[in-house]
Amino acid sequence: MNLADCSSHSATARLLHFGSPGAIYLRRFVGSLHVGRCGSNPTHVKTLRLRSNPPKTLTVTEAELAASAKIIDGKMVAKEIRDEITTEVSRMKDAIGVVPGLAVMLIGERKDSATYVRNKKKACESVGINSFEVRLPEDSAETEVLKFISDFNDDPAVHGILVQLPLPKHMNEQNILNAVSIEKDVDGFHPLNIGRLAMRGREPSFVPCTPKGCIELLHRYGFQIKGKKAVVIGRSNIVGMPAALLLQREDATVTIVHSRTQNPEQIVKEADIVISAVGQPDMVRGTWLKPGAVVIDVGINPVEDATCPRGYRLVGDVCYEEARKVVSAITPVPGGVGPMTIAMLLSNTLSSAKRIHNFQ
Amino acid sequence: MNLADCSSHSATARLLHFGSPGAIYLRRFVGSLHVGRCGSNPTHVKTLRLRSNPPKTLTVTEAELAASAKIIDGKMVAKEIRDEITTEVSRMKDAIGVVPGLAVMLIGERKDSATYVRNKKKACESVGINSFEVRLPEDSAETEVLKFISDFNDDPAVHGILVQLPLPKHMNEQNILNAVSIEKDVDGFHPLNIGRLAMRGREPSFVPCTPKGCIELLHRYGFQIKGKKAVVIGRSNIVGMPAALLLQREDATVTIVHSRTQNPEQIVKEADIVISAVGQPDMVRGTWLKPGAVVIDVGINPVEDATCPRGYRLVGDVCYEEARKVVSAITPVPGGVGPMTIAMLLSNTLSSAKRIHNFQ
Repeated sequence: MNLADCSSHSATARLLHFGSPGAIYLRRFVGSLHVGRCGSNPTHVKTLRLRSNPPKTLTVTEAELAASAKIIDGKMVAKEIRDEITTEVSRMKDAIGVVPGLAVMLIGERKDSATYVRNKKKACESVGINSFEVRLPEDSAETEVLKFISDFNDDPAVHGILVQLPLPKHMNEQNILNAVSIEKDVDGFHPLNIGRLAMRGREPSFVPCTPKGCIELLHRYGFQIKGKKAVVIGRSNIVGMPAALLLQREDATVTIVHSRTQNPEQIVKEADIVISAVGQPDMVRGTWLKPGAVVIDVGINPVEDATCPRGYRLVGDVCYEEARKVVSAITPVPGGVGPMTIAMLLSNTLSSAKRIHNFQ
Repeated sequence: MNLADCSSHSATARLLHFGSPGAIYLRRFVGSLHVGRCGSNPTHVKTLRLRSNPPKTLTVTEAELAASAKIIDGKMVAKEIRDEITTEVSRMKDAIGVVPGLAVMLIGERKDSATYVRNKKKACESVGINSFEVRLPEDSAETEVLKFISDFNDDPAVHGILVQLPLPKHMNEQNILNAVSIEKDVDGFHPLNIGRLAMRGREPSFVPCTPKGCIELLHRYGFQIKGKKAVVIGRSNIVGMPAALLLQREDATVTIVHSRTQNPEQIVKEADIVISAVGQPDMVRGTWLKPGAVVIDVGINPVEDATCPRGYRLVGDVCYEEARKVVSAITPVPGGVGPMTIAMLLSNTLSSAKRIHNFQ
C-alpha cells in the first residue's frame, strides 16, 4: 500500500493558530481554516475582507471557496445522542429505580489510557450513568484482573464492563476479554458478538463502539448505505472488520482494503462510502476519492507541530484539505468519529441495563 | 443483480448423452463435451474425425479447441485428502487406540437430506471414522433433538456432531445449532467459530466445510491468494460469508457481491479469484470474468433436462462453457467443490479427535 504522506504538516500548521476574530469569521465562512497545500499548488486566489478592526485581508484559493463538502459534525451528533441517553437514563430511574452502571478497568500507567478512562468517566456522569473504576498497577497479576472482572460480572449494579486497552505485555488480552460476560461486553469485542455480527439472521448483543459510531453518523445524516459501494480501509478487530460487517448488514457492497492490497487508490476511487481506520496521517489523498463520495475518517493521528501548545496536532487518515474538494461529505479530525465512540459506549451501557431489566 | 440465464439448457443438454466412443474421445481432447451455445453464436467451426467405427465427424468451434482453462478436479483432490485421512485415522488408532467418531442427525423425511446423510456415513466408513446416526420423524419435538445433542456432547466416542439442515419448520435452527458443543461443531456454524474466523489473532476450532474446501482447492493447485483481488458472490452464513473471511485471512482483497449489489458484473470482472455461491444456474457469464481468473463454482443447481435419466442435470452458478474460454482455471459442476465438502467434514472430525485426545 502506498503510504505517501500528502501534506507538509508544518506548512499547514502555521495557519492553525491565527487567533484573530477574522480567523474565526473565515472558519465559519469556508468551513475550515486549513488552507494547507497538501500537495496542491493553488494558483487562483481571492481576497476576503475580514471582520476585524482594523480591517485586514486574507488570501484563499477559489477552490477553497468552492469547496462544498458537507462537514459531518460528530461532536454535534454525539451531543444529540448523549441528550437522548440522559433522557432515557432518567426515565428508567423514575420508572424502575435502576441506574445503568459502567465498570472501567485501567491497568498500568499509560497517560493516553488514563485520559481515555477519565473521559469515559466524565461522559458517564454527564448522562447520569454510574461509573465504577478500578486502577491496577502495571505489574499486577492476570489473575487479579480476572478476579475483578468476575466480581463485575456478578454485580447487578454493573451493566457494562470495559477493560482499557492496550494491556501490559505480560497479560493475555484474549483471556481477559473473554472473561467479560457476554451480557456486559459493551465494547462488543467478544468473538461471539463478532460472529453474530457477521451472520445473517443473528443479532449481536453489542456492536463495537467506533464502527457503530461511523454507521450512526451515516444514518443521522441520511446517507443511503443500501446498494452503495463501500470501502473500508484497515481490517482491525476493533474498527475495520466490524465496520465492514455493519455496512454489509445494511446491504452495501463492501471491500476491505489493507496493507497487502495492491493499488488501494484504484479500489478506494470506486467507493461511494469510504471508512478509513488505519492510523496513517493523511494517507488517503484527494486523488484516491470518487467525486461525491462520503468519507468517515476514523484515524486520529498525532503529527509533530511545534506551533501547537502540546507540540503536536491531530490529523486523520484522509488528507482533509484535498478530500473536501472532491467528496460530498466528510468527518473532520478531531470532532468527527472521536466523540461518537464514547457516545456509543454510553448507548451500549444503557441498552445493556434495559435488556437486563427488561425495560423498554 | 442481473440474474440472466446464459444458456438454452435444453440445447446444451442434447449434447450430453452422446454415448459413443467418439464422444468420450472428444471429452478427453477438449476437456468437456459441452458444446452448448450459452449465448454465443459460433461462426468458425472445425470438424474432428472421431475414433469410431464407422468413422464420423463432429463440429466444434475453434474457440472450443483453443480453450485452455485448467479444470480444478475436486473429485481427485478430495480422494487425495481422504487417503491422507485414512492414513491418519489408522495411525491414531494404532498409537492411542482412539477412532474418530461423527454423529449425524437427520430429522424428517427429505429425500435430498437422506442422500446427504447416507453419503456422509459412507464417506466415514471409507476412511475408518465411526459414524453414529440418529433419524427422527418430522414431527419430533425440539427438546428431543436437544436431548440427543446433549448426549452426543457428553459421549467421548463422538468427536463431531452434525445436524443435517434444513430442519423441520417448527424447530428453531439457532437453538439447535447453538446446543452443539463448540468442541464438536465440525460444521463450524457456531457464531463463536465464525467470530474467531473473522478476527485477526484468533483461531476458529473448525472452519465450515464448503468454504474450507474452496480454499483447499486453491492451495492444492498452488494458486496464490495473498494480494489478489477476490470476489465472493453470495453472502450466506454457510458458504459466502465464511469464504470471504477465509480469503481475507490469507491476505486477499475481498469484495462480497450479493443480491443488492449494483453492476455485479463490473465488480466480478476485476477479480483474480471468484468464488460463486448463490444457487443461480449459469448466472455468471463469460463476459463477467477477467481473463486468467481462477473460478471456484460452489453452485450445484438442478436444471430440467428430459434427456437425463432423472429428468434433470446439475450446473453451477457460472456458465462453464463461456467461462472456460476466458479464465485460467475453473471447477466443474459436478466434480468440483461438491466432493470437497465431505472431505473437509472428515478432516474436521479427525482434527477434533486429535485435539480432544491431544494427539499430534
